[in-house]
Amino acid sequence: MRGSIRAALLGALAVSALAVAAEAQQSTQYVRYEQAGQVSWGFLDGETILQISDAPYLGGSPTGQSVNRSSVKLLAPVDPTQIFMTALNFRSHISGEPAEYPGLFLVPPSSIVGPEDPIVRPPDSQNLHYEAEMVIVIGREATNVSLEDAHNYVFGVAAGNDVSERAWQGADIQWARAKGSRTFNAVGPALVTGLEYQNLDIEGRLNGEVRQSENTSDMIFGIDHMVHYISRYFTLFPGDLIWTGTMGSTRAMEPGDVYEVEVEGVGVLSNEVVQGH
Amino acid sequence: MRGSIRAALLGALAVSALAVAAEAQQSTQYVRYEQAGQVSWGFLDGETILQISDAPYLGGSPTGQSVNRSSVKLLAPVDPTQIFMTALNFRSHISGEPAEYPGLFLVPPSSIVGPEDPIVRPPDSQNLHYEAEMVIVIGREATNVSLEDAHNYVFGVAAGNDVSERAWQGADIQWARAKGSRTFNAVGPALVTGLEYQNLDIEGRLNGEVRQSENTSDMIFGIDHMVHYISRYFTLFPGDLIWTGTMGSTRAMEPGDVYEVEVEGVGVLSNEVVQGH
Repeated sequence: MRGSIRAALLGALAVSALAVAAEAQQSTQYVRYEQAGQVSWGFLDGETILQISDAPYLGGSPTGQSVNRSSVKLLAPVDPTQIFMTALNFRSHISGEPAEYPGLFLVPPSSIVGPEDPIVRPPDSQNLHYEAEMVIVIGREATNVSLEDAHNYVFGVAAGNDVSERAWQGADIQWARAKGSRTFNAVGPALVTGLEYQNLDIEGRLNGEVRQSENTSDMIFGIDHMVHYISRYFTLFPGDLIWTGTMGSTRAMEPGDVYEVEVEGVGVLSNEVVQGH
Repeated sequence: MRGSIRAALLGALAVSALAVAAEAQQSTQYVRYEQAGQVSWGFLDGETILQISDAPYLGGSPTGQSVNRSSVKLLAPVDPTQIFMTALNFRSHISGEPAEYPGLFLVPPSSIVGPEDPIVRPPDSQNLHYEAEMVIVIGREATNVSLEDAHNYVFGVAAGNDVSERAWQGADIQWARAKGSRTFNAVGPALVTGLEYQNLDIEGRLNGEVRQSENTSDMIFGIDHMVHYISRYFTLFPGDLIWTGTMGSTRAMEPGDVYEVEVEGVGVLSNEVVQGH
């Protein structure tokens, strides 16, 4: 990843350990997890999860409980009421000139799965593609937010795979089924705050082989523009998601394939495709 | 309405008062309302609202409290996590042959307003149309429901106006903004159970003049088919909505216009259009 290379170069240039530590401290990795049937939120401290009382964007605070990361099932680190997605937001993914404004569509919360869940290929699916994306999580209720103020409404980001059934996407009147069917939207592994969201590397890998690679600075409509534009027409609530679009060309996944989405500073979201019945 | 005429004819045929009462008892009109900043659910008994402890599809039971209907603000009688809509489900609304399966799209919960709220025309709206529809409210979690079993998953129905910005609907990549902007989906006045959902008259009136008139039996894909089809790809939860499509041709509404949607046995949903700024 370009970010890793950059970090290594910076290390070679002997940047002070203090500066590196300060940068690290600004970033928190929140996770949502299930243990003995109980769903909780927490944040990572190495291999330990420190539990918090509620979603971090709802003001969750430490409960004093902790658990080892490996002893729980990690869930999607999001719990949205509304999920907005962006079509055609990277020049590498479109032909011709970009639109004058973001191309929005919606998927339902029931389409979300986490970093330890499979992506289930429906029995009648013919052409199921991956789409690596960065996912924005909203921190405050947002209506008619100005471009200048928009960054204050972003809580953090996660990695996402917006699985897309291209045959349905072409045949159906709208994209609801093609983009929003059960398990079609994987999110994880963590919800991370304090990153420079508009300058992060994104990489998608099919069975370890790089298939998508770009930086969030290449977006046609940046994060602030998306929050500004969406809040003009819709009311956003804490925890709502904005998916920021995928890059390059995509191809089909088959049962047994594993697709990884890595967002710099967020970690690796890895999901296996299984055949549904 | 054809239903009223039918009822009058039945009355003239001197159907027993007992049979009429029995039919009436099967139908309950649930409402959601706000009083002194508190949101509650209840059901109608004449002009009185008898409060219940939670949404009726979540098992709300009488609290013993009651209030006069005229002393509260009626809200949308729904509180969904997911809202599915159906495109082109009446032959009178399409040209050519119908699709082989329902045309689905999604709108966000923040687009919902109630029977006493205005529909706000966005400043940049050019061609804002009404769309009278019947709205289904789901009663149980639904995954892969068979056609035969589908009726067991319907809790009740309401009247809806799926306000649609035709310029945006034509220009945008998907219909999210055209169909799902703030205040674009009015629902009410009540959520009604026990009706013969597949045989109800629907009428839409612009400033009192009939503009849309049809019966739910004219749907291309009926209610059971919709629940069956949607649950094959998506997981439905109690309280989720399925809008069943509009009929005929539609025209623009201007600020000051009032559009009424009447669904037989449900009542009249009436909303004024106001200009947004």
